[in-house]
Amino acid sequence: MRTQVGIIGAGPAGLLLSHLLHLRGIDSVVLETRTRDQIESTIRAGVLEQGTMDLLTQTGVGERMKAEGALHHGFELAFEGKRRRIDLTALTGHAITVYAQHEVIKDLVAARVAASAELRFGVSDTSVHGIDTDKPSIRYRHEGAEHELQCDFVIGCDGSQGVSRQAIPQALRKDFERVYPFGWFGILCEGPPSSDELIYARHERGFALISTRSPNVQRMYFQCDPKDSVENWSDDRIWAELHARADSDEGHKIIDGKIFQKNIVGMRSFVSTTMQHGRLFLAGDAAHIVPPTGAKGMNLAVADVNVLSKALDAFYKENRTDLLDRYSETALKRIWRAEHFSYWMTSMMHRVEGASAFEQQLQVAELEYVTTSRTAATVLAENYVGIAGAQMQAHL
Amino acid sequence: MRTQVGIIGAGPAGLLLSHLLHLRGIDSVVLETRTRDQIESTIRAGVLEQGTMDLLTQTGVGERMKAEGALHHGFELAFEGKRRRIDLTALTGHAITVYAQHEVIKDLVAARVAASAELRFGVSDTSVHGIDTDKPSIRYRHEGAEHELQCDFVIGCDGSQGVSRQAIPQALRKDFERVYPFGWFGILCEGPPSSDELIYARHERGFALISTRSPNVQRMYFQCDPKDSVENWSDDRIWAELHARADSDEGHKIIDGKIFQKNIVGMRSFVSTTMQHGRLFLAGDAAHIVPPTGAKGMNLAVADVNVLSKALDAFYKENRTDLLDRYSETALKRIWRAEHFSYWMTSMMHRVEGASAFEQQLQVAELEYVTTSRTAATVLAENYVGIAGAQMQAHL
Repeated sequence: MRTQVGIIGAGPAGLLLSHLLHLRGIDSVVLETRTRDQIESTIRAGVLEQGTMDLLTQTGVGERMKAEGALHHGFELAFEGKRRRIDLTALTGHAITVYAQHEVIKDLVAARVAASAELRFGVSDTSVHGIDTDKPSIRYRHEGAEHELQCDFVIGCDGSQGVSRQAIPQALRKDFERVYPFGWFGILCEGPPSSDELIYARHERGFALISTRSPNVQRMYFQCDPKDSVENWSDDRIWAELHARADSDEGHKIIDGKIFQKNIVGMRSFVSTTMQHGRLFLAGDAAHIVPPTGAKGMNLAVADVNVLSKALDAFYKENRTDLLDRYSETALKRIWRAEHFSYWMTSMMHRVEGASAFEQQLQVAELEYVTTSRTAATVLAENYVGIAGAQMQAHL
Repeated sequence: MRTQVGIIGAGPAGLLLSHLLHLRGIDSVVLETRTRDQIESTIRAGVLEQGTMDLLTQTGVGERMKAEGALHHGFELAFEGKRRRIDLTALTGHAITVYAQHEVIKDLVAARVAASAELRFGVSDTSVHGIDTDKPSIRYRHEGAEHELQCDFVIGCDGSQGVSRQAIPQALRKDFERVYPFGWFGILCEGPPSSDELIYARHERGFALISTRSPNVQRMYFQCDPKDSVENWSDDRIWAELHARADSDEGHKIIDGKIFQKNIVGMRSFVSTTMQHGRLFLAGDAAHIVPPTGAKGMNLAVADVNVLSKALDAFYKENRTDLLDRYSETALKRIWRAEHFSYWMTSMMHRVEGASAFEQQLQVAELEYVTTSRTAATVLAENYVGIAGAQMQAHL
């Protein structure tokens, strides 16, 4: 089989890239190890930046997001028993939409299937070949048979555990990583939202995030030991912990509900450079991971493939390679901004074992500042809605 | 002897307070362990915020500062071989003056002496008594004799090693501290300035600061092991280190000169709360220390005594105690802002032993951000010129 662009991975990055290329008249094939049902039902959080919302809408896959996602114009920072609102729209003119990643995936799969795209689910033994030549290929097993996909370009959208990144010679790569000493305990519960907007809470007992999934299903998280087990947490213990961290002294209380899912995720920051080698390009989690505190993960994947689709278009339409050559450099500017922001939000909000009284008080001092200084709040808001990178100029 | 306000310590805080009280018709006595010559000749750096400049000028002790200090409208951040300017005045409408602390002290001593103030140098065995009563006193030895100064209030401006803070019962105090694992190696040298403005340099080898003292005398610093000894550093080694850290790839080079002073200072952050108990009030270094990176030390001392002089004035003129009662709370808002800023600048600019590649790259990402985003640069500039605290509002 032959295509123009071979895409490994049917997450948001791979599916959206395939969709964007299709709109530009460029053929692609998407190979995915999991089944369609698996990728559509793996529950993942999702906060879409303005730019992500706009791109999905402009390319015809934003209809359900607009109908079912929740547009938020601000969020709350809770600390020292009080809640203070960050008015994203007043500070930046932009907003965000809470819409889960697997819902985005459903919309993208539906659009690709409607366009008769070549999506191969349940492949195995994927490997990348010839990326130093202009005839690279992807080999894989599918339904018991060996296959080879010949293409002009291979795009690795196969997440942090995928094979693509490993195809770039180790000597050319430099990895940056930080593993955080805490995790997030996540629950899904039935019940009404506790708040109109997301609440990010900093408490001496640890961080908590009060989020939402729908009018009847709520998503909440609290910082935990990443090695802890969900079995150690009864529903009563979970609610006691969430109330302790996220209720305010001003009378705001979170609303309990029937918990129907519990999970613990670790947190890390990771950037792999370079994001390209020969005819192989990495996008999304294959090249970088952020802790979830900044809500940047899916947005970075979307931004990567947006850059990449334009660069591939310039190659096919105008025989230009300059945009492809600069892909990694271009993408990394936004990525490092998001990495720094995610690290900053994480550091400001989380309890760190062994932190001195001084360090704890600095967190409070910084939260006081970002919630009462318009300039500091604007830094937070510009990063949160995803325009901080675009505001960076060569000369101030 | 009896006075209205007994002041322990003739640093910027104690001397300025005595001066401000004098202008409001309130009597004070200043007790200092060192000699006048010692306090006037101990060389200390000095960056005066706009508010500090204004206060000195408005109260008649800013004339020499205006004539001999250097007004700076910006500074340079150097990293990754480049230099980027933070235009303080364009971003905030304010500026700073480089004018050494011991010069401020000379001006204040001259003003107090001209007003026939009671300044006692060379005292010893100072102790504080009766602060729980409305007749506190200070006992001390001077020229071989025991003395007792009876007063309405005792103000502790005697630095972090002074006796005043210890007079507040331990059970009522909470201290916050961070000792940094690095120090600053400082030099004074003869020669012209290397730059029109201060240069704060972040380099893999460590931080450097290129400052100035006068057209013919320059002040430079570079991060070092706080336990290192000046004897280990020949002039050649010092210049090699400064060039490595502060020269730019764009052709800017620092200018060597004859080094005539070398010293190493440790760095720490410290806040003691409460800053008041009964009739005792602490101001300046007696209550808080910042690392020098944010250039906030003297400015915080000035801000403390400005608040305190108004509160004492309200007590004497209107018999009001509310401002005095709130002194610690009022002062601590500004202090925590400055503590956070100083910590932030220090963290962003210094080499940390054992920092991962990710953490090092975050420093670069943050420097890229604060030098190319107008919003982020404004946060830095507002803090540097000292108006960040004033910009904080109850409701955004």
